[in-house]
Amino acid sequence: MESYLIQVNGHDEHGDHAMLDVQLKTNGNSIPLGKAKGRKPRWAVRASEMSKKTFNPVRAIVDSMKVEPNPKKAMISLSLGDPTVFGNLPTNNEVTRAVKEVLDSGRCNGYAPSVGYQSCREAVAAFYTSPEAPLEAKDVILTSGCSQAIELALAVLANPGQNILVPRPGFSLYKTLALSMGIEVKLYNLLPEKAWEIDLKHLESLVDEKTACLIVNNPSNPCGSVFSKRHLQKILAVASRQCVPILADEIYGDMVFDDCKFEPIATLSTNVPILSCGGLAKRWLVPGWRMGWILIHDRRDIFGNEIRDGLVRLSQRILGPCTLVQGALERILRQTPPEFYHNTLSILKSNADLCYTALSAIPGLRPVRPAGAMYLMVEIEMEHFPEFENDVEFTERLISEQSVFCLPATCFEYPNFFRVVITVPEEMILEACSRIQEFCEMHYQGAEGAQDLECDK
Amino acid sequence: MESYLIQVNGHDEHGDHAMLDVQLKTNGNSIPLGKAKGRKPRWAVRASEMSKKTFNPVRAIVDSMKVEPNPKKAMISLSLGDPTVFGNLPTNNEVTRAVKEVLDSGRCNGYAPSVGYQSCREAVAAFYTSPEAPLEAKDVILTSGCSQAIELALAVLANPGQNILVPRPGFSLYKTLALSMGIEVKLYNLLPEKAWEIDLKHLESLVDEKTACLIVNNPSNPCGSVFSKRHLQKILAVASRQCVPILADEIYGDMVFDDCKFEPIATLSTNVPILSCGGLAKRWLVPGWRMGWILIHDRRDIFGNEIRDGLVRLSQRILGPCTLVQGALERILRQTPPEFYHNTLSILKSNADLCYTALSAIPGLRPVRPAGAMYLMVEIEMEHFPEFENDVEFTERLISEQSVFCLPATCFEYPNFFRVVITVPEEMILEACSRIQEFCEMHYQGAEGAQDLECDK
Ligand SMILES: Cc1ncc(COP(=O)(O)O)c(C=O)c1O
Ligand SMILES: Cc1ncc(COP(=O)(O)O)c(C=O)c1O
Repeated sequence: MESYLIQVNGHDEHGDHAMLDVQLKTNGNSIPLGKAKGRKPRWAVRASEMSKKTFNPVRAIVDSMKVEPNPKKAMISLSLGDPTVFGNLPTNNEVTRAVKEVLDSGRCNGYAPSVGYQSCREAVAAFYTSPEAPLEAKDVILTSGCSQAIELALAVLANPGQNILVPRPGFSLYKTLALSMGIEVKLYNLLPEKAWEIDLKHLESLVDEKTACLIVNNPSNPCGSVFSKRHLQKILAVASRQCVPILADEIYGDMVFDDCKFEPIATLSTNVPILSCGGLAKRWLVPGWRMGWILIHDRRDIFGNEIRDGLVRLSQRILGPCTLVQGALERILRQTPPEFYHNTLSILKSNADLCYTALSAIPGLRPVRPAGAMYLMVEIEMEHFPEFENDVEFTERLISEQSVFCLPATCFEYPNFFRVVITVPEEMILEACSRIQEFCEMHYQGAEGAQDLECDK
Repeated sequence: MESYLIQVNGHDEHGDHAMLDVQLKTNGNSIPLGKAKGRKPRWAVRASEMSKKTFNPVRAIVDSMKVEPNPKKAMISLSLGDPTVFGNLPTNNEVTRAVKEVLDSGRCNGYAPSVGYQSCREAVAAFYTSPEAPLEAKDVILTSGCSQAIELALAVLANPGQNILVPRPGFSLYKTLALSMGIEVKLYNLLPEKAWEIDLKHLESLVDEKTACLIVNNPSNPCGSVFSKRHLQKILAVASRQCVPILADEIYGDMVFDDCKFEPIATLSTNVPILSCGGLAKRWLVPGWRMGWILIHDRRDIFGNEIRDGLVRLSQRILGPCTLVQGALERILRQTPPEFYHNTLSILKSNADLCYTALSAIPGLRPVRPAGAMYLMVEIEMEHFPEFENDVEFTERLISEQSVFCLPATCFEYPNFFRVVITVPEEMILEACSRIQEFCEMHYQGAEGAQDLECDK
């Protein structure tokens, strides 16, 4: 160290900028450079491959849609899966009060165990346990949102070079995470004509020896669909026969309209090992709080300690969700009044009905009736809209002409549909639907135009 | 799908356990198995390589120290880097009130941008900007704790197969994260006899063409050391000469005792690109809240958009820290009274002095006086304790005989030292030191014993 001679030059052009440029000279001796001998260092800092592979298709598509809304019409955005943006769906007072109590107590400011406080894990287990799929505290890992639950589940189940089975249309995070980890994505089809049930033959045809897991998202973003017990059993049968574990994304669990029932997939199987991911985001209407969890269902001990220990180790990387929310979790789960859940669902159901009815009446559109979650998918009969190349162009023009923003379903790997978010206030849904109607009537080409197109082929 | 025949057998041994076993039979036709043709599926779910490589040495070492404390003495744990455990260092009321205000407003329950609210990024930039190292909102990325800041910084800077330079002794998370990502770790030495300054020659000798970044942790965990301006300039000179970017872990920034000053490393360089990681955990005494940040210093545009965009993309994986804390951040940074910081530091300084003085008087121990953070390292003159193989055995026996728990510095890759946490109440420090004294006096072997050992060689 003593062989360094320091030269410090203060460059101080503006008087208040006391920048220092540090230059070192060796004291006659050359500095030992180890393996770097002979290397001529120059700055060449490149972003890692992983960061380049981390790619959010929604962002990419939306960012490329550089269109201005119609200045004469106020913007109505039906694009964001965030139920809090319009203020019509506030969380429950009990939920807020629970966190305030924690703050006042001062007892949850320190580090929690990386998998979450024991008492919280117990509370989540108690809330979700059932005779068919019993849960204890040790089966629960708390995470920073359902997103991190999915990240950890994928990270523990799949190696680079393996593949996972992902629904099409489906939530884009699965692919974003998988590709960044070097995991291949195989898309299995959902069938709009069967209320978005899985094409089971297609699903099973995709399984190979490198398949690390099957992602089942129920209720579905973007479809708003809810699988029947019978359909879930068929999915489990595929997983069981092919010996593929399931990553169940049940963040919209229990968010189903009155006429149907949500069945946690783990309650329908005794053998398929399942990591069920969930969280507070949607049902409790606090997505920003970043509270999620993994429920480990493994009654045949197929995951065994290996997967459990792996999850614990992975949780130590960033040390779990905010302790203020953790500390409140037990009270949130126990004390949120049932009316709160019912009220949310009745608003969603009513919006879904309004929206479905309004869009069904529009020539050239074919909405699929949702049964849960917060979304509705609409097919665009593209042959009747020859002006537009695809769903991206359709939704772009819907913005520039009508100031209504819906996500093109290309974001979900499903061209020629768009997704409508139904958490917005009723008046807005109605206004949006009437603008969509105006838009479609303007651009619709009837049988004639369609025939022209046919002839072109 | 129609070719499936479902057989559902309800097994219901106990009346309330309505387990279902689902078996599928094909309807005469064989199911198309795609690439899986000929594969005999069986359950073989293995944890991923990455989850196996994710390894926390502190956990491993501590978990293997299966010793019972002395039942006659109450346990005193000086092992946890969590300043909240004893209640003597509560956070400030302003900090708590800021979060309560956010809760009451109901305005921060939705998703924030994945890099954090713009207003929060501005607040952090405003708090840390300086003429020498100016910051704007775009230079700030909010993360789930400083741990995630470090994770993202490493993930964007290094590819598998590259290496990073990490201090020894040093915080174990660096290695945990790096190894899990397939990044090699090269340990550079800190010199206890020079108040834990970096052995710069050793550091520079480790650089090679695969070096992705240099981690500088100042003030230091576990050393409690604080680098002088002059030393930081020398470190920067190495980075500059070798063209290696710096990951500065400054989570203990500004936590220095009165006689010295904390210099953010970025304020001393105009050319070395630096990602400085920090957060609320230590200075604001709320580690459980998981609020961290990356400050991007890149005045020569060496990181450029590539690294910035990479960080943004990586942040989209789990969507940032809890919005309740984000929403409170501006007020926390602006309104926390200076007395709060001073008070914390004067307690820490007083504890450091007490502890240093007490341990200095103990034969066989050589504490290194700390200048900041919350720790103090103590060398064990192992030749005077021939009974013990190493620091792990020494600290194990300290638990079983005296019920005092200090982390063996093997946890920090630095054998024959142990780390003392100085955030505990004064009485406890004193009691712990007197027990350590009793322990050392019991086991110390003077000149004689030591000479015996010498002769053995
Ligand atoms: C299907 C699905 N899974 C997971 C998530 C992520 O949930 P969180 O906000 O808790 O990370 C979302 C959010 O929109 C989602 O739609
Ligand atoms: C040096 C150092 N860096 C980073 C961290 C992690 O900070 P956080 O709790 O904000 O993730 C710690 C925690 O002890 C630390 O000592």
